[in-house]
Amino acid sequence: MGEPKGDLVFAAKRLEDFIGAALVALGLPEGDARTCGVRMTEADLRGVDTHGAFRLPHYCRRIRAGGFNLKPAVRAVREKAVTALVDGDNGMGHVVMTFATELAIRKASEAGLAWVGVVNSNHAGPAAVYSTMPLAQDMIGIYMTVANANHMAPWGGVELILGTNPISFAIPAGEEPPIALDMATTVSSYGKIKLAAQKGESIPVGWMVDQKGQPITDPRRSDEGFLLPIGGYKGYGLNVVIGMLAGVLNGAAFGRDVVDFNKDLVTPNRGGHMIFAMRVDNFRPVDEFKREMDRVIREIRDSKRMEGADRIWLPGEMEYLKVQERRRHGVPVAVSTVDQLRRLADELGLPDRLD
Amino acid sequence: MGEPKGDLVFAAKRLEDFIGAALVALGLPEGDARTCGVRMTEADLRGVDTHGAFRLPHYCRRIRAGGFNLKPAVRAVREKAVTALVDGDNGMGHVVMTFATELAIRKASEAGLAWVGVVNSNHAGPAAVYSTMPLAQDMIGIYMTVANANHMAPWGGVELILGTNPISFAIPAGEEPPIALDMATTVSSYGKIKLAAQKGESIPVGWMVDQKGQPITDPRRSDEGFLLPIGGYKGYGLNVVIGMLAGVLNGAAFGRDVVDFNKDLVTPNRGGHMIFAMRVDNFRPVDEFKREMDRVIREIRDSKRMEGADRIWLPGEMEYLKVQERRRHGVPVAVSTVDQLRRLADELGLPDRLD
Repeated sequence: MGEPKGDLVFAAKRLEDFIGAALVALGLPEGDARTCGVRMTEADLRGVDTHGAFRLPHYCRRIRAGGFNLKPAVRAVREKAVTALVDGDNGMGHVVMTFATELAIRKASEAGLAWVGVVNSNHAGPAAVYSTMPLAQDMIGIYMTVANANHMAPWGGVELILGTNPISFAIPAGEEPPIALDMATTVSSYGKIKLAAQKGESIPVGWMVDQKGQPITDPRRSDEGFLLPIGGYKGYGLNVVIGMLAGVLNGAAFGRDVVDFNKDLVTPNRGGHMIFAMRVDNFRPVDEFKREMDRVIREIRDSKRMEGADRIWLPGEMEYLKVQERRRHGVPVAVSTVDQLRRLADELGLPDRLD
Repeated sequence: MGEPKGDLVFAAKRLEDFIGAALVALGLPEGDARTCGVRMTEADLRGVDTHGAFRLPHYCRRIRAGGFNLKPAVRAVREKAVTALVDGDNGMGHVVMTFATELAIRKASEAGLAWVGVVNSNHAGPAAVYSTMPLAQDMIGIYMTVANANHMAPWGGVELILGTNPISFAIPAGEEPPIALDMATTVSSYGKIKLAAQKGESIPVGWMVDQKGQPITDPRRSDEGFLLPIGGYKGYGLNVVIGMLAGVLNGAAFGRDVVDFNKDLVTPNRGGHMIFAMRVDNFRPVDEFKREMDRVIREIRDSKRMEGADRIWLPGEMEYLKVQERRRHGVPVAVSTVDQLRRLADELGLPDRLD
């Protein structure tokens, strides 16, 4: 968990403020800009470097192209005690999902659980940022989303009509870090492929295949093929189910309707997500549950390791430790990203140039 | 979907009655025995041959050994409008899960959704049998369970403290078969390994590894290793999350506490499941939702196929067609299974010997 060489290190608060200031300069209301700053910095704190400050320049390009509604009327358009459909009005995904998650938590506090679906949203960052929000209230969180670009084909098919559609589960623990699983349903993300291409590295067999199902190991050939799902037809099935629960159920885009937000800066994404929050004390007293979670977490971590394995990790444990460390010692940001952020600061005339 | 040679074919009703009669002869109340007959036959109808009538002899051995409570007081011990914890009182898993699922559906009818956790249950058959029950009420179903034997190690570990922990999602459609994903979180089930060993076949690389992480391809060596999760650490994470939500949350067995119900006929399993039911009309009108589901299902099925692929299947479509066919033309049962069932019929003096 050392900082990679060549990275610059910033306090989390400074990144939050920088992102917020950039978005205010582009016309976002102050509160919404701050929400985006906090959520995007959480991605960096968790070590999901491709989903944090790194994305700001692209979000800003999309804002300038008119791809986002900067003053959206985010609201529940259908609502019951334990469910809601939130219309994001094409606002920034972070703003929309924060609204939806807070609504789910509020409803679950009263009724025990809640499922909130979201439509007309946008890219909102890593899944675990939202699934983990209910943890502070001793709640379980579940989040699913339709990915914002299609890099996968159906099982047996070759057309790119499915995304990496991730799912995330968060479960409270006691003294141990909470469980926070955040997984795409593809073996690799598309970002990792692009990174390998940049570095001139090859990719392992099992990540991508070409139109004939033959492995692609040269990432520069990624346009000729598509990502593979985890567990073959199983991951494909899970991918489709997530797309239906986060997308179709909410009237959001899924399949061919998905807009590639990296290539098209203007067309509304009609992005779909779902967030579920549930109190653990529906089933067991909180203290008892947490003690038992600690016990099974330790049982797994302390079980016999395979020769050569340094440690057995629980889902989300690595990210949790990273957050602790980065809150203390700062968040490393790649020099290439800092360069882009500085250019953005110049363009927008921001007071902090991250110097 | 032809019938394998050497199988005998029975009407579904006859199998249901046979199973019911066997269980009544062993002391189950008539209604509970009928429930088991229906649920187990559903497994055979869906083509999950290892989870239907095939299991009856083993369930009967466990009943005779005193491993089940034949007259359990299955009841909700904690209950809210949208949640319940059901104590199965060590009854047959099929009886307990039918009770829990019907309770979830009833609650969801009124409140929009419900999550019912289950403790003190037993092996209940294939996951999709329960996740699909809410479909008839235009509801989505989700089911997770802690598997009844541990054949997997944590990622980086070698101790068999995790099961195949399956998850199932069911989503209504209109004219198209409903979506019904039913997947273990391991690449292969343990049953497939045993079957390969019986047939003298080898197993593919990627299904099992030994204590050093080397592939096992000879299934007769299965005792030396463990099953691999789908997608490596991702499937491991999903497996653990399912175990916590279906097990720990309900005070049910998980990890080392899991009793291998194939080897130990007496120790109560303290089995854990969860079932979730949710009305689709919380989010969209039912007709509109179903039309849109049909559209995306056809979009996926009709998308361009890979050379050599006959068809693109949606999750659960194959099983749905099998159910239709088997309801019309009967359920094929392997001769070896029929032999065992006939022996059982003799022992119990059943009127129908499946001749």
